[in-house]
Amino acid sequence: MAATPLRIGMIGYGFMGRAHSNAYRKVGNFFQLDRTPVLQAACARDAAKIKSFADQWGYASIETDWRKLVERKDIDAIDICTPNNTHKEIALAAAANGKMILCEKPLSMDGPEGRVMVEAIEKAKVPNMVWYNYRRVPAVTLAKNLIDEGKLGRIFHYRAKFLQDWTISPDLPQGGNGLWRLDVGAAGSGVTGDLLAHCIDTAIWLNGDIDSVCAMTETFVKERQHNLTGKKEKVGIDDACAFLCRFANGSLATFESTRYARGHKAQYVFEINGENASIAWDLHDLHRLQYFDYKDESKIRGWHNVHVSDGDHPYIGNWWVPGLQIGYEHSFVHQVADFIEGVSKGKPAQPDFRDALRTQFVCDAVLKSAREGTWEKVERV
Amino acid sequence: MAATPLRIGMIGYGFMGRAHSNAYRKVGNFFQLDRTPVLQAACARDAAKIKSFADQWGYASIETDWRKLVERKDIDAIDICTPNNTHKEIALAAAANGKMILCEKPLSMDGPEGRVMVEAIEKAKVPNMVWYNYRRVPAVTLAKNLIDEGKLGRIFHYRAKFLQDWTISPDLPQGGNGLWRLDVGAAGSGVTGDLLAHCIDTAIWLNGDIDSVCAMTETFVKERQHNLTGKKEKVGIDDACAFLCRFANGSLATFESTRYARGHKAQYVFEINGENASIAWDLHDLHRLQYFDYKDESKIRGWHNVHVSDGDHPYIGNWWVPGLQIGYEHSFVHQVADFIEGVSKGKPAQPDFRDALRTQFVCDAVLKSAREGTWEKVERV
Amino acid sequence: MAATPLRIGMIGYGFMGRAHSNAYRKVGNFFQLDRTPVLQAACARDAAKIKSFADQWGYASIETDWRKLVERKDIDAIDICTPNNTHKEIALAAAANGKMILCEKPLSMDGPEGRVMVEAIEKAKVPNMVWYNYRRVPAVTLAKNLIDEGKLGRIFHYRAKFLQDWTISPDLPQGGNGLWRLDVGAAGSGVTGDLLAHCIDTAIWLNGDIDSVCAMTETFVKERQHNLTGKKEKVGIDDACAFLCRFANGSLATFESTRYARGHKAQYVFEINGENASIAWDLHDLHRLQYFDYKDESKIRGWHNVHVSDGDHPYIGNWWVPGLQIGYEHSFVHQVADFIEGVSKGKPAQPDFRDALRTQFVCDAVLKSAREGTWEKVERV
Amino acid sequence: MAATPLRIGMIGYGFMGRAHSNAYRKVGNFFQLDRTPVLQAACARDAAKIKSFADQWGYASIETDWRKLVERKDIDAIDICTPNNTHKEIALAAAANGKMILCEKPLSMDGPEGRVMVEAIEKAKVPNMVWYNYRRVPAVTLAKNLIDEGKLGRIFHYRAKFLQDWTISPDLPQGGNGLWRLDVGAAGSGVTGDLLAHCIDTAIWLNGDIDSVCAMTETFVKERQHNLTGKKEKVGIDDACAFLCRFANGSLATFESTRYARGHKAQYVFEINGENASIAWDLHDLHRLQYFDYKDESKIRGWHNVHVSDGDHPYIGNWWVPGLQIGYEHSFVHQVADFIEGVSKGKPAQPDFRDALRTQFVCDAVLKSAREGTWEKVERV
Repeated sequence: MAATPLRIGMIGYGFMGRAHSNAYRKVGNFFQLDRTPVLQAACARDAAKIKSFADQWGYASIETDWRKLVERKDIDAIDICTPNNTHKEIALAAAANGKMILCEKPLSMDGPEGRVMVEAIEKAKVPNMVWYNYRRVPAVTLAKNLIDEGKLGRIFHYRAKFLQDWTISPDLPQGGNGLWRLDVGAAGSGVTGDLLAHCIDTAIWLNGDIDSVCAMTETFVKERQHNLTGKKEKVGIDDACAFLCRFANGSLATFESTRYARGHKAQYVFEINGENASIAWDLHDLHRLQYFDYKDESKIRGWHNVHVSDGDHPYIGNWWVPGLQIGYEHSFVHQVADFIEGVSKGKPAQPDFRDALRTQFVCDAVLKSAREGTWEKVERV
Repeated sequence: MAATPLRIGMIGYGFMGRAHSNAYRKVGNFFQLDRTPVLQAACARDAAKIKSFADQWGYASIETDWRKLVERKDIDAIDICTPNNTHKEIALAAAANGKMILCEKPLSMDGPEGRVMVEAIEKAKVPNMVWYNYRRVPAVTLAKNLIDEGKLGRIFHYRAKFLQDWTISPDLPQGGNGLWRLDVGAAGSGVTGDLLAHCIDTAIWLNGDIDSVCAMTETFVKERQHNLTGKKEKVGIDDACAFLCRFANGSLATFESTRYARGHKAQYVFEINGENASIAWDLHDLHRLQYFDYKDESKIRGWHNVHVSDGDHPYIGNWWVPGLQIGYEHSFVHQVADFIEGVSKGKPAQPDFRDALRTQFVCDAVLKSAREGTWEKVERV
Repeated sequence: MAATPLRIGMIGYGFMGRAHSNAYRKVGNFFQLDRTPVLQAACARDAAKIKSFADQWGYASIETDWRKLVERKDIDAIDICTPNNTHKEIALAAAANGKMILCEKPLSMDGPEGRVMVEAIEKAKVPNMVWYNYRRVPAVTLAKNLIDEGKLGRIFHYRAKFLQDWTISPDLPQGGNGLWRLDVGAAGSGVTGDLLAHCIDTAIWLNGDIDSVCAMTETFVKERQHNLTGKKEKVGIDDACAFLCRFANGSLATFESTRYARGHKAQYVFEINGENASIAWDLHDLHRLQYFDYKDESKIRGWHNVHVSDGDHPYIGNWWVPGLQIGYEHSFVHQVADFIEGVSKGKPAQPDFRDALRTQFVCDAVLKSAREGTWEKVERV
Repeated sequence: MAATPLRIGMIGYGFMGRAHSNAYRKVGNFFQLDRTPVLQAACARDAAKIKSFADQWGYASIETDWRKLVERKDIDAIDICTPNNTHKEIALAAAANGKMILCEKPLSMDGPEGRVMVEAIEKAKVPNMVWYNYRRVPAVTLAKNLIDEGKLGRIFHYRAKFLQDWTISPDLPQGGNGLWRLDVGAAGSGVTGDLLAHCIDTAIWLNGDIDSVCAMTETFVKERQHNLTGKKEKVGIDDACAFLCRFANGSLATFESTRYARGHKAQYVFEINGENASIAWDLHDLHRLQYFDYKDESKIRGWHNVHVSDGDHPYIGNWWVPGLQIGYEHSFVHQVADFIEGVSKGKPAQPDFRDALRTQFVCDAVLKSAREGTWEKVERV
C-alpha cells in the first residue's frame, strides 16, 4: 500500500518505450509489490516528440539530453530504449551515477563491448536487467518450470525459429526512426541481434550453455535507400541467418531467423525434445504450450494443447479468470514485477547484464562462422 | 490360408458399391480371417454400366435383375447399395433365400418399414449388418473404448454436426444417378436420413438410447430440375436439420446437419463431455482424436491431440507403421473384417438391422417434431 | 492533449470492476480521445474492501452507499458492476441524476424490467452502454465488417456455443462474492443470462433479429451449499441451456451454453455460413479469425487462418506491431474508446440499453420455451 | 479394359513389400491404365516366409533366389524392396535381363555406387523408377503445381524436418529383419539415407539443385545389441543429422532428421517461402496443405488450410467424394499409376534412377561435411 516509488527515467519513445511505459503503469494494479514505478522523466533529442510521448503516457517531465537525465537525483532507474549502438555509453554513465539500469536487448553491439558494460555495472553494484521479455510469457515460464522439474529427462534436440516477412519489399528504406534495425551502423547486425538474440536467450535459459555453432547468413536485398543519407546504400545487415549448434549438455540444435518468410509476422517458435517429454511453443499463439509426455497411457498419448490461462500457471493468478488470455504486452509487466521483487529481495531478476552477455558471445560466434564458413567455439562468460 | 470363400453379390455400383468392393478386395491382405470375400456377381439394371463396373473391380459375373441375384446358389451374401426406397424389398427377398445381408444405411425409409425388415431377417436367422461405417474409424472406436473403460464418468453433454456445402447452387438438379439423395421419393428424407443417421448411430453406440427430441428443418432451395421428369419440381427433402435431445442417461445433446455450410465438405464432428474427461473427433482429420482428462496434472492439463496411428490403437496394427495415417476407405475394410469374424464366431458384428432400427426411430421422431413444432418421444426398439 | 476529464464512479470491485478500471486507465495511452477517464470514486458496501480496491487502482475517493455516489456532482459517469438484481435500481437513480451509465451485462433480470430501464434512460437522455465486450475483440469486429461488406451473401446458418467447466464439482457453493452467478436470486438465471446473453448479443449484431426459439435447460447439480444462508439450498439456475432458433433473415441457428463441458474454460465459439463465405471464431484464441471464401481459386480454397494483428485490422493499429497479439482485456479498452468517441460525436456506441434489451427478450423466450417445451416468438424491442 | 498385364517380380516382403503389393492390387480399380499389374512372383531367401507373404497377397509363385527371379521370362518388372546394400547387384542383374526396375529408396549406398547403377540401367534402356513416394501425396503434388505456376515468385527459404522417436530406448537392438535400418552395414547410413533422403528428393523436385551443405550428425546411443552377431556392437549409423544448405536458385535451407524427437512418429514437414506466397505440409496430416498468398486482400490474409480432397486436386478425382481423406498408402498407388502411364507413353515417371542419384550425392556431401566440419559442394549428376 505505502509502496516506495521507483522513479523511472525513460530514454527513447519508440515501440519499446511504449511497451515498457505500459508495464510500469500497470504492474501495481495487478501485482503486490513494495516499490511502485513512477514515470518521472522521458528523454529524447527531439523535444516535440518526447513532449508528446510524455503527455500520452503521463511522464512528469522531459529531458532532451540523456546525460542530464542520468545525473538527475530524482531518478532511481534508467530504462534504455535506444538503438543498440548507444547502449554502452548510456549504461556506463548511468552506472557511474548509481542508477539501476533496465536495458533493451541486445545488450551491446558485440561481446567485447558487452563485457565492458558488465564490468562497469558490476563494479557499480547497481541492479540491472536486460529486456529479454519472452522469458516472462507464462507459457515459456511454464516450459522452464517443467524442465527444472526434470520432466523431460536427457535433452536430445532444441530448435528455434524467428520468422518475419516485413522487409521483403526492396522499396523499404533503411535507417532512421522505426527503421534503424535495418541500418548496420545502428543495429550492429540484422536478424541475428534482433531476433536470434531472443531465441538464444531463451535457449540458454532452458537448455544451458552453447558450445559451438556453424552459421550461414544472407542479405537478399543488397541496397536500400538510406533515410539518413537520402541515398541508396549497401545493406550491411543479415536479412536471414541460420545456424547449427551443440549445447554443453550434448544436445543438438538448429536456429533460424529471417525477415523474408512470407506468411509469418512474428513467428517465434521453439521446441525441445527430451528422453521422456517434449515441449513446443509459438509466439503467434503465445498463451498455449504444447506438451508431450511419453509417460501418458499409450492409447491416449498425444501432444497436450495447454491453454496457459489457469490460476496455477505462472503469473496468471494475477490477471483475469481461467480461459481468458493475456497477450504480448503482459510479458513486460511480469518482467517489471520480477525486477522489483528482485531489487526488494536483493536477488536480481534474470537476465541481468551478465546473463545477456552470454547471448552476445553466441551472436559473435554465429556472425564469425557465417563470414568464415567454419564451426566456431562460443566464448564463455 | 485355406480360408473358405464368402461369395458376394453386390447390388449397385455407385459410391458405396465402390467403397464396399474395395473393402472386400483388401480385407484378406491385412486381416487374418477364416472367410475370404469373393466378388462373385455385381448387379444393376443397366447392363453396360454394371459390366464396366464388374470389369473394373473383378466381379466374376453380372446380373441385371436383383431377384435373380438373390436366388443364385453361388452367392453367400447380398450387399445392398441401392437407394433407400429399395432396401426393404431386396432385404426381404434375400432373407427369404437365406442370404447374409450387408445393407447400406439408412436401413429403411422409416421406422415401421425397418421393423418389418428386422422381423423378417431375424425370422430368417441370417447374419446381417448395416453399413454405419464411421464406428470403425480407429479414432471413433478408440472413443468407444475409452467410454467403456469408464474414463469419462457421468456424461453431461453430447453434440454432433455433419456439415456439407455441395447443394448450395440452385442449378444443381435432383434425382437420378448420383443425385437420388436429393429426391425425396428415393431417399425418404434429406440430411436427416443421409447424414444425421450417421451421427445418431454413433451417438447411440457411444452414449445409449435417445429419449426425446425437438427438431427444426429447412429446405433452402424450394424447387430444382428433376433428372427423371425433366421438369422443375418441388424439393421434398430437408436441406438442413437441427435438433435438441435428451438421452436416457440424462445427458443433453444438440445435433445438426446441413448441405449449406459453406467451407465444409464432409465435416462430421462429435464431442462428448463427461464428469472426468471429454472426447472430440472430426471426420476431416479422421486419424486424430482429441482427449481431455481432468486427472492430468493441472499445469499440463490440455486436450491431448492423439494421432491414432499406433499399434495399440484399434485396427492400426494391421496396417503400416506408427505415424502413417489411413483414410476413409479403411473404415469399410474394418467393418468387413468384423462382420466376417462375427459370422465365424456366431456373434454378429454391430450394427445389425436391429441396431440400425433404433436410428430409424430417432429419425422418425426428428422429422415429426420438425413438422409439428413439438418435443417427441423416440419409439424404442 | 488538453482532453476533458470523464469522471468515473465505479460501483463494484469484482472481476468486472477490475476489467473496467484497467480499461479506463489504459485507453488514453493508446487512443487519441477528447475525454480522458478519471477514476474519481469507487463504491461498495464493505468499506475496507472498497478502500483496498481504490488504492490498488488509484481511485481518488470511495463511497459505501451507491445512492450517495450517483448524487455526487464530481461524477460524470456511473459504471454498474454489481449483480444483475441491482442494475435497475442503480440505473434509474443514475439516470435521474443525469449521469452517463455504463452497465454490466445482462442489462436486467428480464425483458420487462429492462424495458423500464430503457424508458427511464431514454427519457433522461443520458449516454448509456452495456458491456457486451466481445463485439470489440478485433477478430469479432472484423467479422462484422466482412458481413457488412456483403462478403457472405445470403446467410444460411449461425451457430454459437459458450462452454465452461468450472461448476462440475457438487462441493462448489452458491451465492455471495464471486459466486452470486450461481444464485438465482442475484443472477436471475444461470448460463442463459451469463453466457448465452453474450452469444445472443453478438448474433443479433452480426445476423439481425431472432424471430423464434425452442430451448431446453438442465440443472445437473440440484442442491448446493448457499454462502448467504449457510444451508444446502435448491439450485435455481440453469446449469446448461441449448436452443434452436430462426432469425428474421431466414437463417437457422443453434445456441448452447453450459458450465459442465469438461475441458473448456471459456470457449465462446461462433460460426456463420453464408452463400459465398463463412466465418468462425473462438474466444480461446481470440486473436484469430477463420474465414472461408468460395471465390478463392478452387485448388487453394480453404479456411484462411487470419492472425488478426495487423495495422489494417480493427483497433490493432493502436497497439503494438504486426504479429503481436492482444488479449481479453483489450476488448474493454476498445469499448471505452468507442463510448467516448460516441459521446463526443453525439452518436452513441452500441450496444446501448435499447440494443441490450433485444438480448433480454431472447433470453426470456428461451427460458419460457425451456419451461414449457414449446417454440416461442421473441418480443421485439 | 483389355489391359496388357504387367507381371511383377517382387523381392522382399517387409513394410515396403506390403506397401507396393497393395498398390499393384488396387491401381486398376481406381485408374484407367493400359497395363494391369499382375502379382507374378515374390522372392526372398526364407521359403516359409515368402510363401506366407505370397499367399497373403495373392502372388502366383515364389522364388528363394533373386537371380532366378530376374531371369524368369514371365516377369516384366522387378521391384527391389531389400536392404540398401543389395540394390546395386540386383538392379544390375535385372537390367541385364531387360527387366523394368522399381527400386526402393535410397537408390544406393552412396553416389559412386548409384552412378554405376544409372549407367547400367540407361545402357539397358529399361524403364526405371525409385520409390520416393511422397511426391505423390496429393498435397505435395499440389505444392509442386503451385510452384510451377509461379505462384511463389522468387524463393527465399526452404526448410524440412523428418522427426521420429522410435529408437530412443537403448534396449532396442540393431540388425536383422525390421531393424536393418539401424545396421550401418545394411543401410549405409542412418537417418540421412532413410529419412533425409525423402526430404532431399522432395526439395530438389520443388526447389531445384542443391549447391552446398554444412552438416552435423550424432549417434546418441553408442552401442546396441546386434541381432546378427548376438553381441553388443558399436552403432555405426547417424541417429540424427541436421544441415544448412544453399540451393542453386539462391535460397537458403535447413534440413533436420532424427529418431530421438519424442512425440513425433513420422513428422515429415516442409515449408517453402517465396516472395509472393508460401507453402507448408506435414505428413502427420498429409491430406492438408497450408498456403499463404500475399495477394489475398490484406484483412483476410492468412494461411489457407486446404483440405486436399476435391476433384480438382491431384489424383483425388480417382478416389471417393470431396472431403473424404485418403492416406499414406495411396501415394504408392499414384506412383504405380504414373509409372505405368510413363511406360505407355515412353516418357518415364520421375524420379527415375538418374533423379534419385542427385539425392545420393547430396547425402554424400552431408555425411562428409558432418565428418569433417566443413561446407561441402554437392556433386552434380
